[in-house]
Amino acid sequence: MTLEGQENRSDTSHNKSPLLSDPWKPCRRHRAVVKELLLKLRCCLGTVCGIEWYGYAALGILTAILSFLMDLSVAKLLRAHQWLYTMLEGNVLLQFFCWTLYPACICAIASSFSHNICPFSTGSGIPEVRTMLAGFEMPHYLSLTNLFSKFLGLICTLAAGSTVFLGKVGPFVHLSTMVGGYLSNLCTLIQRDKKEKAAGEMLVVSAGVGVASCFGAPIGGVLFSVEVMSSHFALRHYCPCFFSAACGALTFRLLAVWGGDGETLQALFRTNFPDALPFYPLEILLFAFLGLLCGAVSCCYLFCHRWILRFTKTNPVFAKMLTTEKGLYSGMVVFFLASLTFPHFAGQYMASKYTMKELLTSFLDSRQWTSQSHNTSEQLEPLLEWSSSGTSVYFSLVFFLLMKMWMLVLACTLPLPAGYFMPVFIYGAAIGRLIGEGAAYLSSTGVTPGQQWASVNPGGYALAGAAAFSGAVTHTLSPVLVAIELTGQFTHAVPILLATLMANALSRSGHRPSFYDALSISKRLPHLPSLKKASPQLPSTPVGQVAVKSVLLQKAAGPVEAEQAVRTSTEMQIPVVDSYESQTLLGFVLRSELLTFLRRWKTESPEKHLDEGCCIHQTSIVISPHNTVQEAHSILSLLGSQTLFVADEGKLVGLITWPEVGISPCCFLAKPLAQHLFSIH
Amino acid sequence: MTLEGQENRSDTSHNKSPLLSDPWKPCRRHRAVVKELLLKLRCCLGTVCGIEWYGYAALGILTAILSFLMDLSVAKLLRAHQWLYTMLEGNVLLQFFCWTLYPACICAIASSFSHNICPFSTGSGIPEVRTMLAGFEMPHYLSLTNLFSKFLGLICTLAAGSTVFLGKVGPFVHLSTMVGGYLSNLCTLIQRDKKEKAAGEMLVVSAGVGVASCFGAPIGGVLFSVEVMSSHFALRHYCPCFFSAACGALTFRLLAVWGGDGETLQALFRTNFPDALPFYPLEILLFAFLGLLCGAVSCCYLFCHRWILRFTKTNPVFAKMLTTEKGLYSGMVVFFLASLTFPHFAGQYMASKYTMKELLTSFLDSRQWTSQSHNTSEQLEPLLEWSSSGTSVYFSLVFFLLMKMWMLVLACTLPLPAGYFMPVFIYGAAIGRLIGEGAAYLSSTGVTPGQQWASVNPGGYALAGAAAFSGAVTHTLSPVLVAIELTGQFTHAVPILLATLMANALSRSGHRPSFYDALSISKRLPHLPSLKKASPQLPSTPVGQVAVKSVLLQKAAGPVEAEQAVRTSTEMQIPVVDSYESQTLLGFVLRSELLTFLRRWKTESPEKHLDEGCCIHQTSIVISPHNTVQEAHSILSLLGSQTLFVADEGKLVGLITWPEVGISPCCFLAKPLAQHLFSIH
Repeated sequence: MTLEGQENRSDTSHNKSPLLSDPWKPCRRHRAVVKELLLKLRCCLGTVCGIEWYGYAALGILTAILSFLMDLSVAKLLRAHQWLYTMLEGNVLLQFFCWTLYPACICAIASSFSHNICPFSTGSGIPEVRTMLAGFEMPHYLSLTNLFSKFLGLICTLAAGSTVFLGKVGPFVHLSTMVGGYLSNLCTLIQRDKKEKAAGEMLVVSAGVGVASCFGAPIGGVLFSVEVMSSHFALRHYCPCFFSAACGALTFRLLAVWGGDGETLQALFRTNFPDALPFYPLEILLFAFLGLLCGAVSCCYLFCHRWILRFTKTNPVFAKMLTTEKGLYSGMVVFFLASLTFPHFAGQYMASKYTMKELLTSFLDSRQWTSQSHNTSEQLEPLLEWSSSGTSVYFSLVFFLLMKMWMLVLACTLPLPAGYFMPVFIYGAAIGRLIGEGAAYLSSTGVTPGQQWASVNPGGYALAGAAAFSGAVTHTLSPVLVAIELTGQFTHAVPILLATLMANALSRSGHRPSFYDALSISKRLPHLPSLKKASPQLPSTPVGQVAVKSVLLQKAAGPVEAEQAVRTSTEMQIPVVDSYESQTLLGFVLRSELLTFLRRWKTESPEKHLDEGCCIHQTSIVISPHNTVQEAHSILSLLGSQTLFVADEGKLVGLITWPEVGISPCCFLAKPLAQHLFSIH
Repeated sequence: MTLEGQENRSDTSHNKSPLLSDPWKPCRRHRAVVKELLLKLRCCLGTVCGIEWYGYAALGILTAILSFLMDLSVAKLLRAHQWLYTMLEGNVLLQFFCWTLYPACICAIASSFSHNICPFSTGSGIPEVRTMLAGFEMPHYLSLTNLFSKFLGLICTLAAGSTVFLGKVGPFVHLSTMVGGYLSNLCTLIQRDKKEKAAGEMLVVSAGVGVASCFGAPIGGVLFSVEVMSSHFALRHYCPCFFSAACGALTFRLLAVWGGDGETLQALFRTNFPDALPFYPLEILLFAFLGLLCGAVSCCYLFCHRWILRFTKTNPVFAKMLTTEKGLYSGMVVFFLASLTFPHFAGQYMASKYTMKELLTSFLDSRQWTSQSHNTSEQLEPLLEWSSSGTSVYFSLVFFLLMKMWMLVLACTLPLPAGYFMPVFIYGAAIGRLIGEGAAYLSSTGVTPGQQWASVNPGGYALAGAAAFSGAVTHTLSPVLVAIELTGQFTHAVPILLATLMANALSRSGHRPSFYDALSISKRLPHLPSLKKASPQLPSTPVGQVAVKSVLLQKAAGPVEAEQAVRTSTEMQIPVVDSYESQTLLGFVLRSELLTFLRRWKTESPEKHLDEGCCIHQTSIVISPHNTVQEAHSILSLLGSQTLFVADEGKLVGLITWPEVGISPCCFLAKPLAQHLFSIH
């Protein structure tokens, strides 16, 4: 074995020489043995498939474990709150304080925690992740402190329950991206080749895994991330995405099984819709109407959301609070929301005792709520809560919809790590339930032709409404698949797809930004599809109008010119032309190499000209000023490069980098973010 | 009304002036009224949404109607054959002739019909469609005669039933592309703007609609076409694709309902898997093993398929028969296949009396075949046929798998319009059923730990096998969704996904071409992902090695030089340089404009120089010789352009067109096809 080890060592001497040569490190012998074993393991693993595939599997499994742990702790925190509230039964004042202060304190703590530890951890994370996927490097968004504070902050947000009404999808995409970032570093460490490819691919994959591990919905998760993240999807990412998502979903569900939740792998919100006759053919029209209604409501919601995003920036009081007193602001807003949902006050009309999960389960129930009120023996649990105040369920649902609309918009301003997909999904389910209950009531009283429509299923409408509304808000279609995977029932696939298409048609008709686009615009993160909605003329603008006149150097430039160029230009690549008169583009020099050239010129024997002392790199792609910004954006994202040179008949016109493509002149980057954005290589 | 009409007429005078001014056309008044009404209708339609959306809806509906009509006629033809066969009960010889000659004649007729009417209508059509989607124009493949002969030929192929064992997916993609081509022409006629965009988009959409209308599977259909067709998918096509596919699937299922097939919209192969306990967690390992098995079998199948594709080209007898005597060849092969499957001969061991649909239904049955043999009172129909010869079902299944493997490979050589997805899907279901029956038998006899595994469902294995095998053969993952949509059951989603991933991993591991890639290579259709498998080094080759030295003109070129350039070059765009010495690229002239210039020079006052008489267009994008072929391919397909110029430091090196990118030097185009391929613009 030692001989073999010797051989192995000589093969990979560059791996171990620093280890063995450093006399200060302890246990050299043992460490060498361990390292040898690890190298052998790498060889063994490498024979089955590429190392990156283990990375994908690990990514899925780790994210699923994170998701499971989070669900577990959130459930414990929610149960503690419920237990305390029940214990205080009889004393309304104490109950009120318990109901309001618990979430308010939790959110205030989470807010100041994330503000102090890592200010980038607030919000959804999806706009930032898609900016990273577009090619920007934002290292602060993938740091370990961010992972830590986002994870803890999200637990607090979710523990506040249905009072603040926020979800976990967006932050989970961000969390899995961070995990993916670390794993890709690990993979490149092991592989030592294919460096850039693996890093980029891992980011794409992890965006899909986040949603998949969050719900145990591999297919819908991957497609949702594809729709939200990119404008072009490369099919070579398809297999890694699905593999990692399947690993994640499998782990997530197996953990649930091992945790004693059911005998086998089941959907998160399993429904019992009748298989034989899920819906009548004519009901399709009603589903289409539901889709249109959801689209209309989503337009209203998106308008309110855009308004409040602007308001919190322009109103001096809000703006100041949100920059300095995040904890106080969160506490106050959550206290206000919680006092409204107090079950002895307005909360009794909106089933505020339910957690988010219980709300969705009650909406997706296939039994009709209203019919059960006739025979009280079969009184159902959902009914108990939804008509606990003695009012009709229709009133409760309408009240729920009206109140939650502005409460949700207000909750979106909270500086907490929070997802905005699940609340929208549940809100849509409520819209669908309202229509479904109405249809079921009308059909059971015989308004519809004959006795045919005896068994209209209001749960199906709730599911269609959920998919349609969340699809309309995010401008995506994949909530159809998410809805199907969440419930595990395929019977309503076609009506759900139809409703979602209708809702999307209405919500996209005005070319208004989607929810995530509005966030991107508000945070000034470059993302072309969102900016297309903010300034529709930009993508078809010729590049020539946008390209910046950059500092340039001629081939025969001396050190003085080079020094001046370095001082005046901030670009990483400085173009080199034949001569200042002809302006024929030859290539570019890297800023770093130019600095080396200058340093050498100062210290050593001076080289006279640029082309003698510096390597002139060839420009990979040159575009003409007549190409549109849209095309320039496509090429930049396709090649993953940072700079495109614009030349007209071989003569340099200017250059195009991400800011020129993504950011319209009216929308310059805010200073702190800009520093991150421009730290490009 | 006349006044309004007058006004309207003056608005759209350019529309109607030729109509009204031509004195020879009859019923001028009536035609004008009709035209006015149509124009008003266009205005009304245009207010709701863009005209192209009506086109997408019409595309889906028309394709679904075609699919429904085809299913109807095929069912009638199959029933006629069965009726005749049953009538001849007692006379084995007559039965033999009925069994063999009916499909042989049908296929021979279909083959000679398609050979004479439109030779492009044979085969699957998917390789051709994806070549068209890559940007090539192949007008013969979208002609009306092709539509007609493909439709009739496909009916004949399907009417031959499970004897020839071919499906309808591929040709339906082709059919819907043809319908889409006509509808896009209609849309551009109505719109008069956005011409090119609509045409390209309609083709992408129709590829997805074909699969969706074939099975009533909108989601899986769109994703399948995305995976098979392209290497990059633009998300702006997502909504049109799903909209059109949903229209198609809805129409297809509604037609089935109105045709009396069930009370509501149902899946094509509805299964009754138990919802409560679809599978035990440990069964997932068995599903993964099934996936690996399917992957291994698919490698074997793909090898045989590639071998026979080569054999039919190199063997002189086969090659001659397939070019001249297509009808005879088809008749002979089908007669041979049919005589093997004769139910009184080997057919009794492979349930040859079943049609394709019945085969799949029997495989997907959730009840165990073997257990029913104990209590004969509950004797099941699938069992009756699968053990009709008295042999065990295992023997029948193994015999079926062994025989169908080479029979399917042989059937793939038939010069008929035929799909190859469905047979592969059914074959995979048989593999899965074999494993599932074994697992169910073992678990029921108590080999597994305890009495836990009382109810293993072999149908689930069949479904997973079907998705895994068809996914492995086509190198796609979307068969998972197709399988789910075909059966309407979501319970097995995660194990099916896992099995398909495993199968894909194995079948892609050797970088061998997929089924459609092999067809593309054999037909010499340019498609980068397939050529990547044929010659893996090509995509990373620098462009400089592939770029062709093209004929070029200097700015000051005279007519003599221009004439020579036109004679020697076949390119549509001829590059123009500053001077032959400097070779600085200025732009290009179009061949057509150059011809005009030459004509004018001969007839009228001669202009001396090229730049005076001809417009020099600016090159949109110039790439450097160091870019890889992969990147050049991406940029070409992104921009939908036909030529890229390669320049080094502003000096022209050569140019890149589709053939350079797609076709490796070893694989030049066959002459007749090349003429179509190069007829660009």
